[in-house]
Amino acid sequence: MVGGGQLARMTHQAAIALGQSLRVLSESPDDSAALVAADVRIGTHTDLAALREFAKGCDAVTFDHEHVPTGHIAVLAAEGVKIYPGAEAIVFAQDKQRMRERLTDLGAPVPLWRPVSSVSDISDFAAMVAANRAAKRATAGAAQQGSPAQRIGTGEAGAEDTGWPVVAKAVRGGYDGRGVWMLDGPQAAEELVVSGTPLIVEERVPLRRELAALVARSPFGQVAAYPVVETVQKDGICVEVLAPAPGLSEERALEAQQLAIDLANALGVVGLLAVELFETEAGIVVNELAMRPHNSGHWTIEGARTSQFEQHLRAVLDYPMGETSLTAPAVVMANVLGGQPGGMSIDERMHHLFASDPGARVHLYGKQIRPGRKIGHVTVLGDDMNEVRARAVRAAKWLQEGE
Amino acid sequence: MVGGGQLARMTHQAAIALGQSLRVLSESPDDSAALVAADVRIGTHTDLAALREFAKGCDAVTFDHEHVPTGHIAVLAAEGVKIYPGAEAIVFAQDKQRMRERLTDLGAPVPLWRPVSSVSDISDFAAMVAANRAAKRATAGAAQQGSPAQRIGTGEAGAEDTGWPVVAKAVRGGYDGRGVWMLDGPQAAEELVVSGTPLIVEERVPLRRELAALVARSPFGQVAAYPVVETVQKDGICVEVLAPAPGLSEERALEAQQLAIDLANALGVVGLLAVELFETEAGIVVNELAMRPHNSGHWTIEGARTSQFEQHLRAVLDYPMGETSLTAPAVVMANVLGGQPGGMSIDERMHHLFASDPGARVHLYGKQIRPGRKIGHVTVLGDDMNEVRARAVRAAKWLQEGE
Repeated sequence: MVGGGQLARMTHQAAIALGQSLRVLSESPDDSAALVAADVRIGTHTDLAALREFAKGCDAVTFDHEHVPTGHIAVLAAEGVKIYPGAEAIVFAQDKQRMRERLTDLGAPVPLWRPVSSVSDISDFAAMVAANRAAKRATAGAAQQGSPAQRIGTGEAGAEDTGWPVVAKAVRGGYDGRGVWMLDGPQAAEELVVSGTPLIVEERVPLRRELAALVARSPFGQVAAYPVVETVQKDGICVEVLAPAPGLSEERALEAQQLAIDLANALGVVGLLAVELFETEAGIVVNELAMRPHNSGHWTIEGARTSQFEQHLRAVLDYPMGETSLTAPAVVMANVLGGQPGGMSIDERMHHLFASDPGARVHLYGKQIRPGRKIGHVTVLGDDMNEVRARAVRAAKWLQEGE
Repeated sequence: MVGGGQLARMTHQAAIALGQSLRVLSESPDDSAALVAADVRIGTHTDLAALREFAKGCDAVTFDHEHVPTGHIAVLAAEGVKIYPGAEAIVFAQDKQRMRERLTDLGAPVPLWRPVSSVSDISDFAAMVAANRAAKRATAGAAQQGSPAQRIGTGEAGAEDTGWPVVAKAVRGGYDGRGVWMLDGPQAAEELVVSGTPLIVEERVPLRRELAALVARSPFGQVAAYPVVETVQKDGICVEVLAPAPGLSEERALEAQQLAIDLANALGVVGLLAVELFETEAGIVVNELAMRPHNSGHWTIEGARTSQFEQHLRAVLDYPMGETSLTAPAVVMANVLGGQPGGMSIDERMHHLFASDPGARVHLYGKQIRPGRKIGHVTVLGDDMNEVRARAVRAAKWLQEGE
């Protein structure tokens, strides 16, 4: 696995059970996976020579992140390395513009979006969004003409919809909320555009909540889908995952799973594909794609019959996929972020947490604590979603803040 | 962890989640745990200098087996190393005579037994067993004098009970059926005694089945008990573990758990204590003790909220114990033994198994395959014990024999 972060760390755990040992290409010997894996090579994922040397003797090569240049991936594949996902697939997880173009071509549900090369592109886009919404309201109004009270009740006809704010995204390199900007007008747009970052712009979707659909696909073409989950974000970082997504209709869950399966097939993904979704009044909309073990799937370690980490290995090794069913009616994962320095050591916090909740499942990543950095996660399983969620949040807060 | 076998391998997996990395003292770099751990020292557990060097910088030191000399353990403890279980406890897992003496003193249920220093000791013991049983039959007969038909029905009065066969056990070093001999008469006893192996001799217990009670105890004195399991042995090797033990009364399960808890406290065990039990008509009897993660607890990886490996780490690190409840109504572990050479590779076998049973949980130990050697295990979870057991046995057979 190229990259030595927590995803490689947890993939190594899964590899051990399969009788394997994960070789890791890590930037530093202190990286999360490098601390626990037996076979660590130090090197950078942008260095083709390092990748080539690393790949020698591996049954298959895969990634802890999406930052390996597709050119390098293609070269290795041409040299006979089994490297998954392939360059032709992973580009859609690297490049948001290519992703949006491809999803639009495939007819997948996406927000209104445009590539950006100037401030006026963004202003024009906002105007288009405003016009589009006005047209939708007119259609909805026409459909509702038999109930004037309802029309008056919405109060929307009187509000001026300018299309702003819009969402600008860096075409490449964003994660955990970085590379995403909410622009409230042309002034903000100008400041961003002059920075020179290649961008796309998207409509701000009126979302109810966020969902994620996780599937794995093998080179043979077998696809396994996990139950659809709700993801809760805070400041752009995933903080909780609820499995299964509470109150999600069977119909919409199947729709989300089918969408993820169709995308995995259409894009030729081998390994995991996480489809981050917005749930809106009108239906689901694709937000982002990831092609690797994903934060929205950490709950599967205890909460599904086969963890996403084992599933990813099964896929890239071309084994048949494992069962994806839930092991309990309600499973909640809460991320542990680095808290402010001072106070109890993480070890003392573990003591207190284990004493107060002997069933909380803790995963620490061996990382130096920095405020806001993901340093671990906690999973709780049970029968009642509200209770399970409260326990998970409380456990993560303990590890994070020592209180 | 001293020792690089599969127990250390699976303990490393558990350590990763706790934010730790297991340091392993391994005889060879090809040992099961050495293949997957980041921090491997090569050395022998009988070498005090190697142990001393190994222990430097460890938070705590523990064992993958019971073969470290107690003298060495005591020296390290005196030098300030947190080493668990301590010499005064582990001796009862090393030395069967000391174990039987101590259990007898504690009033724990044990078979009739005697130390052996000559053939006549064994013959005298057999005679004592015969006399003891005759006395029991007489008591039972007196109690039943109101129902002569029943007495006649037993047919035992006519059979000659010589006390043979008896069970001889090497005082030290036996495992997986080695170091245990069924002696059918003085001739067999003589052959064994002349070999010079220090022995004890025990009554052959008329067992219904074997059970195991697994507990963990922390230095603080907290003890956590797992559900009592049934273990199925073949040629002295554990081949299946059924959790919970089918049809075991609540009363007897509690009795077995309480016995294990009492022994852990009385012997001052820190870490896991596995109490191997015989279930007889008259009740439970202690067969063996182990003070480390144990084959009878492998099912806990998926089948209990806290695996025995994490529990052992929590104990030796003095964390509060984790929840021990079952994650499914029926859990079965089946060991995978090395099959005859030839036929499908283990990789092909995995393919077939995963295709036919996507829910089977496989654990391979990375060992060279030798006939009869434990090379892995399979765990299956579900609602119906018979169904779950059939799946587990079938899965293990696939991996073992490729059919």
